[in-house]
Amino acid sequence: MNNFEFHNPVKIVFGEGSIAKISELIPKNAKIMMLYGGGSIKNNGVYDQVIQALDTFSYIEFGGIEPNPKYETMMEALHIARKENIDYLLAVGGGSVIDGTKFLSAALCIDENEDPWEILQGKIEVKNGVPLSCILTLPATGTEMNPNSVISRKSTQEKLSFGSPFVMPKFSILDPKTVASLPERQIANGIGDAFIHVMEQYLTVPKNTPLQDRWAEGVLKTLIEEGPKVIENKNDYEAAANFMWSATMALNGILSRGCVEDWSTHVIGHELTALYNIDHARTLSIILPGNMNVRRNVKGDKIAQYGERVWGITEGSKDERIDATIAKTVAFFKALGLETRLSDCNLEEDTCKLVADRLEQRGVINFGEKGDINHGVITAILKDRL
Amino acid sequence: MNNFEFHNPVKIVFGEGSIAKISELIPKNAKIMMLYGGGSIKNNGVYDQVIQALDTFSYIEFGGIEPNPKYETMMEALHIARKENIDYLLAVGGGSVIDGTKFLSAALCIDENEDPWEILQGKIEVKNGVPLSCILTLPATGTEMNPNSVISRKSTQEKLSFGSPFVMPKFSILDPKTVASLPERQIANGIGDAFIHVMEQYLTVPKNTPLQDRWAEGVLKTLIEEGPKVIENKNDYEAAANFMWSATMALNGILSRGCVEDWSTHVIGHELTALYNIDHARTLSIILPGNMNVRRNVKGDKIAQYGERVWGITEGSKDERIDATIAKTVAFFKALGLETRLSDCNLEEDTCKLVADRLEQRGVINFGEKGDINHGVITAILKDRL
Repeated sequence: MNNFEFHNPVKIVFGEGSIAKISELIPKNAKIMMLYGGGSIKNNGVYDQVIQALDTFSYIEFGGIEPNPKYETMMEALHIARKENIDYLLAVGGGSVIDGTKFLSAALCIDENEDPWEILQGKIEVKNGVPLSCILTLPATGTEMNPNSVISRKSTQEKLSFGSPFVMPKFSILDPKTVASLPERQIANGIGDAFIHVMEQYLTVPKNTPLQDRWAEGVLKTLIEEGPKVIENKNDYEAAANFMWSATMALNGILSRGCVEDWSTHVIGHELTALYNIDHARTLSIILPGNMNVRRNVKGDKIAQYGERVWGITEGSKDERIDATIAKTVAFFKALGLETRLSDCNLEEDTCKLVADRLEQRGVINFGEKGDINHGVITAILKDRL
Repeated sequence: MNNFEFHNPVKIVFGEGSIAKISELIPKNAKIMMLYGGGSIKNNGVYDQVIQALDTFSYIEFGGIEPNPKYETMMEALHIARKENIDYLLAVGGGSVIDGTKFLSAALCIDENEDPWEILQGKIEVKNGVPLSCILTLPATGTEMNPNSVISRKSTQEKLSFGSPFVMPKFSILDPKTVASLPERQIANGIGDAFIHVMEQYLTVPKNTPLQDRWAEGVLKTLIEEGPKVIENKNDYEAAANFMWSATMALNGILSRGCVEDWSTHVIGHELTALYNIDHARTLSIILPGNMNVRRNVKGDKIAQYGERVWGITEGSKDERIDATIAKTVAFFKALGLETRLSDCNLEEDTCKLVADRLEQRGVINFGEKGDINHGVITAILKDRL
């Protein structure tokens, strides 16, 4: 096990009816900006619950944050928040709204003469954040309990991320009832996203971390069991609760302590979203099987462990077991309704080199848990998924 | 799943060589009391590492905190800490030193005219705590990452507990190297203690919490695998690290979210420690099997699940599987060198009624996950372990 630190002070308030508790949790004198997405919260009752709970507070609203939150949109929010002297941010939505709000939290604390884009480029060190909290409406990214944020810039087709303890939510409300109003497509995305978050931390090289491995396998098995129940019936509160808690635990840092992480599926997937606006989770479900197949020299031992413990695959040679494990994983994604090949999104062979070129041009090379992913490996992974 | 809150802001710094980091983590101007136990840290190098790291700080020492930390001892520490205007507490030791330090943290923040014992009686609400941090030298209780403390009063043979978020450590240092200098008896205690902490949260009534169940089973399996390795060779750093991390995760709150907890084995066990000074963990390893056997009507479904997933027991009727599961659990405790019967500690039948009488006299009745444990059930559990 590697040395590590773990520090996650986000307070979780979980369960039906918990949205009303924000009135006890937000400081009374806060000047709040409430941020949300395309307006679905106005149709599913969440908006009304939030407005009622904020009754005695001073707040303004900022709606319209899109999936894969845009830098340009958040710059509008920044302009307004500065003008209105906002000192508390309340994100009401899924990962995109929360990620956008985290970026805003950091951007509000840099000098007005500085360029907020440099936060995402890593040129400005985040040294503070405006306090923010979340009401999660879409279990998926885990951003409600971690320090990370991913932002897309429309004008340059770039998708960049940053992380800082200063933008970790003060609290996050997780009410599984919100799942009932989600489109099936978003539920499938959430299950796939959470699943592959675990894989990026778990399916790497063994570091003698038996507890972390079992906890990762526990999240995977729970998503495999409970995910289809939620797809089948969005009103199954218990299944929604188990899915929601699994998605939060999938990426709050606890699974990867002392381990080696990968994240190459995300790095490559972000390019597909930036280029073709494919849903984040669906880029991952396309790329992961290729990553497992092409990089079995790196991931083989863990793929075999995952195959045995999660899918019960024990027969055959190691390569045969790896093949069977990849097949099971692909079948699971397909059953959720996720794409698993580039051709499922009408993409062809030219995509493979284009993505590899883009990453290489930005200097994103030699990544992954072994630092072995170069232009050739990226191309091979994508070609595997034609 | 029940509604719940989860909030654990303790920072963990894990790994070999991490003790030196206290110099970066403690505020420079702190007036520190460093607390420790019987002096073993002076023989194993921990004391020297701490003193070196505190070189530029202002601190005093308070040693001599005993196992099952005594109220009387902590009152001495309180007297000195008040006189010296201590504003930071550094606990260096195992669960007893840390629990004593938590009590001191709370006691330093009540009025000098108030009786600190009332904190443990629940008559004084803890509203603040002097900041405290820990260097853990004995993996066992999980107190390094939770808000709880148990204190014994010599004069009245009472053992009481309290919990408050204000006494959660700011940070805890976990260096698995410290395990190498522990007596085998204490290692066995630590493994048993952590194991039974999980059982008190997991082996109750099903609440449709598949992820929490799998994480609990993950800790149990890891302790079953890694515990004997540590007993076999205290210098096995990797096994010690896995044991240490498992013990912390066993009782930091994450396993029981949304579940129903029991803790009756602890309640009864505390009486055996108070009366006969039996090591805490060894009271638990005696009582748990009786609790499983006598209360199989309450715990049966979870015992069967635990038997199947942790011990691979799938054959026979439910009662036969429960019997086999209890036998496996007892055998595991015995292999660690823990007592599993009252007679192993030379206690006889009169103990059973005495313990039940003491609890009833203090009004501790109708406890456990179903509120079904009364004088008769306590007596039956203890008689099962004669």
